[in-house]
Amino acid sequence: MIEARTLQGFSDFLPEDMYLRQYLMDTWRHTFESFGYGALDTPALEYEDILMGKYGEEEKLIYRFTDNGDRKVALRYDQTVPLARAVVQHQNDIKFPFKRYQIGKVWRADSPRKGRKREFYQCDADIIGSVSPLADAEILCVIDQGMKTLGLDDYVINLNHRGILEAMMNSWDIPEQFHIEVFRAIDKFDKIGADGVAKELMTRKVPPDAHKKILELLDWKETDIDKVFNFLEKKFGNSPAAQNGITNLRRITELALASKVDPENIFINLNLVRGLDYYTGGVFEVTVPVFGRTALAAGGRYDKLTQAFSNHNLPGVGVGIGFETLYELLKEHPITFPKTAPEILLVAFSNELLADVSNIAAELRAIGKRVMVYPGGAEKMSKQLKYANDLKIPYVLIFGPDEAKAKKIQLKNMETGESQTIKLDELVNKMSVI
Amino acid sequence: MIEARTLQGFSDFLPEDMYLRQYLMDTWRHTFESFGYGALDTPALEYEDILMGKYGEEEKLIYRFTDNGDRKVALRYDQTVPLARAVVQHQNDIKFPFKRYQIGKVWRADSPRKGRKREFYQCDADIIGSVSPLADAEILCVIDQGMKTLGLDDYVINLNHRGILEAMMNSWDIPEQFHIEVFRAIDKFDKIGADGVAKELMTRKVPPDAHKKILELLDWKETDIDKVFNFLEKKFGNSPAAQNGITNLRRITELALASKVDPENIFINLNLVRGLDYYTGGVFEVTVPVFGRTALAAGGRYDKLTQAFSNHNLPGVGVGIGFETLYELLKEHPITFPKTAPEILLVAFSNELLADVSNIAAELRAIGKRVMVYPGGAEKMSKQLKYANDLKIPYVLIFGPDEAKAKKIQLKNMETGESQTIKLDELVNKMSVI
Repeated sequence: MIEARTLQGFSDFLPEDMYLRQYLMDTWRHTFESFGYGALDTPALEYEDILMGKYGEEEKLIYRFTDNGDRKVALRYDQTVPLARAVVQHQNDIKFPFKRYQIGKVWRADSPRKGRKREFYQCDADIIGSVSPLADAEILCVIDQGMKTLGLDDYVINLNHRGILEAMMNSWDIPEQFHIEVFRAIDKFDKIGADGVAKELMTRKVPPDAHKKILELLDWKETDIDKVFNFLEKKFGNSPAAQNGITNLRRITELALASKVDPENIFINLNLVRGLDYYTGGVFEVTVPVFGRTALAAGGRYDKLTQAFSNHNLPGVGVGIGFETLYELLKEHPITFPKTAPEILLVAFSNELLADVSNIAAELRAIGKRVMVYPGGAEKMSKQLKYANDLKIPYVLIFGPDEAKAKKIQLKNMETGESQTIKLDELVNKMSVI
Repeated sequence: MIEARTLQGFSDFLPEDMYLRQYLMDTWRHTFESFGYGALDTPALEYEDILMGKYGEEEKLIYRFTDNGDRKVALRYDQTVPLARAVVQHQNDIKFPFKRYQIGKVWRADSPRKGRKREFYQCDADIIGSVSPLADAEILCVIDQGMKTLGLDDYVINLNHRGILEAMMNSWDIPEQFHIEVFRAIDKFDKIGADGVAKELMTRKVPPDAHKKILELLDWKETDIDKVFNFLEKKFGNSPAAQNGITNLRRITELALASKVDPENIFINLNLVRGLDYYTGGVFEVTVPVFGRTALAAGGRYDKLTQAFSNHNLPGVGVGIGFETLYELLKEHPITFPKTAPEILLVAFSNELLADVSNIAAELRAIGKRVMVYPGGAEKMSKQLKYANDLKIPYVLIFGPDEAKAKKIQLKNMETGESQTIKLDELVNKMSVI
């Protein structure tokens, strides 16, 4: 006998978990589709060399092995590298700008002790081949629509721009080679606080003259978007690089607001760094204040997506939804959502009535209801009602010999316990409005 | 530079392919859900010992490797063994009878030269923990609803029963140890014809007295369900085992017909064998005559799903939809289906109008339309129209300076080429009925 068990970091999801997971996937899928993004599906297994050299230190977390044909293969670590690979491989079939979304599993041999999963879903949307700020703005609108559909109306997009960050560093006379050190230090602010960042700046030997300015930045609180841009222009506008970044971010914001994003949902957060080497323009992280500082989505603009596979580089902008984070948070803080669970259980009273009951079920399915006939057959009534209860099925229809004779059926509301008798030929009409 | 390529037997699916694939997945998912099946998601990776010893000869096709933690792991080969594992592992959380469906990828290191994919989707629905013929009948109803939704109304369920097959063998005095040999020979009928089966029976040393009866069976053509059952009862009814099988299959058929399955869709096919060791009761294979003999779905009743993981055996009945076969066939024989592709492209005329255009797009999305603003920004009109054409977007909305002044917008039907001008404040109403 083999013990039934799953690998650490891997999980089964039973129907009770899947209702919320599917609702989240459906919500993002329909959001992406309502903006015209098309789905992409890429293999779980790739040639190892497609993935290697793309993830720095993290590369050691890739599941790699040699297959039966002596090929070195690897399990998908994220959906971004396969996107880059696919865009180059199918460049003659793809129409650019290419708007694609992908919702799929990825695998990382990470430490489950830190609460990390080894198998989890990613949920990404990207626009490849456009440099227009319209594309950046649209990504913000996608987030807006998705979050509002989930009822998370008070979400905040923390928005910054790599060009502005760079220009600030320059204006503070921080030499180029220290920029990444400063970014790394700032990036830890949430975890180590201002004192921690100050220490990091020392350790990383960032020129001391700039420390005060950097620490001031960490205290950034201004929420009025216009005031922020005016401040930035006054302070850094004489640098053409800074002005470019400011103009770009102002335009992105303007277009997002024109698409009905509420200004209260956007916070120009000058200490947001996000992804050290990858992003080149606008960057953002989405939080929901009642859930704390956990990022529920993040992304930005990048320039070198395809550089590993092609000399022809393609610019892009995109968002990754933190699917598993969102799932865990909404499990803890339940929301109301349309479950795809069965709505009606038909109780099979006796073997003689099973055919009639099956027929009634078919009629109710034909009007779009999710209907189960108790799958054990004509078992004890109490057992069938307990089943409806256990599965949280809201309505039970009982069809016994008396009902059959009278051409009626009994409807029981499992929440209130109330029962009523309905004429068989009125059942479909009656149930269609329930 | 790394060459952008996929492993043999693995494929990318671009949006143009995904519309049909998603439609098929959605159709089966909603069909399963309308009968009250709940989704199950199991890991792609399992402990190797969960999968080994379950697939006979085919076991060599399992992708196996040793992970970083020195664990022997394997990629999911099908969804049935993980279902058995999950049912035993979560037996205290699951309410039986357990109706679950699963649509997911599986991996087999098969020969791509034979047209076999190494990564493909399976799409299964099962009822675990019920011996009632109602469960068997429901599986047939699920197939009926799914096939009809796909417009494949003239599908045929080839239906047989292992009990009847066994009883026939016994009545022909074929010793028990030859039954499996006979089944193997019959199972090859489609490929090798009657002469081939005759030869197989010789080679397998099946007692010659029975050959004629077996070969007669291969010629089975009677389509009238009642006549078949009457014939069977007359011929084999004196054997209690045969009578059990006949009664069971008659009841399954009766209940399926009561649920509005058309008798023309059911063919009691006495030479259907299907899965040598696994099935124990009703078995079936679904074909669509215009597509030839390819099975588009198959399944039946089994008794020993959980035997590898538990002493407590659970009976079940289920169906596997041949997702990839269905996809390939419907790609060759296109059907009409609701695509989730963008419906409207908003043409951005100039940078000054981008904000207005974004606003109009948001209003159209709010009434449920799938709307793209041309993601490249305000590029040449001809380029934007070509994009709509390439992506087969049926409607284009053009908002230029003249339209802005007149508070109107131009609607272009890309199929007919016709244009009309619409007042801006009437646009949402107008588009809602398109």
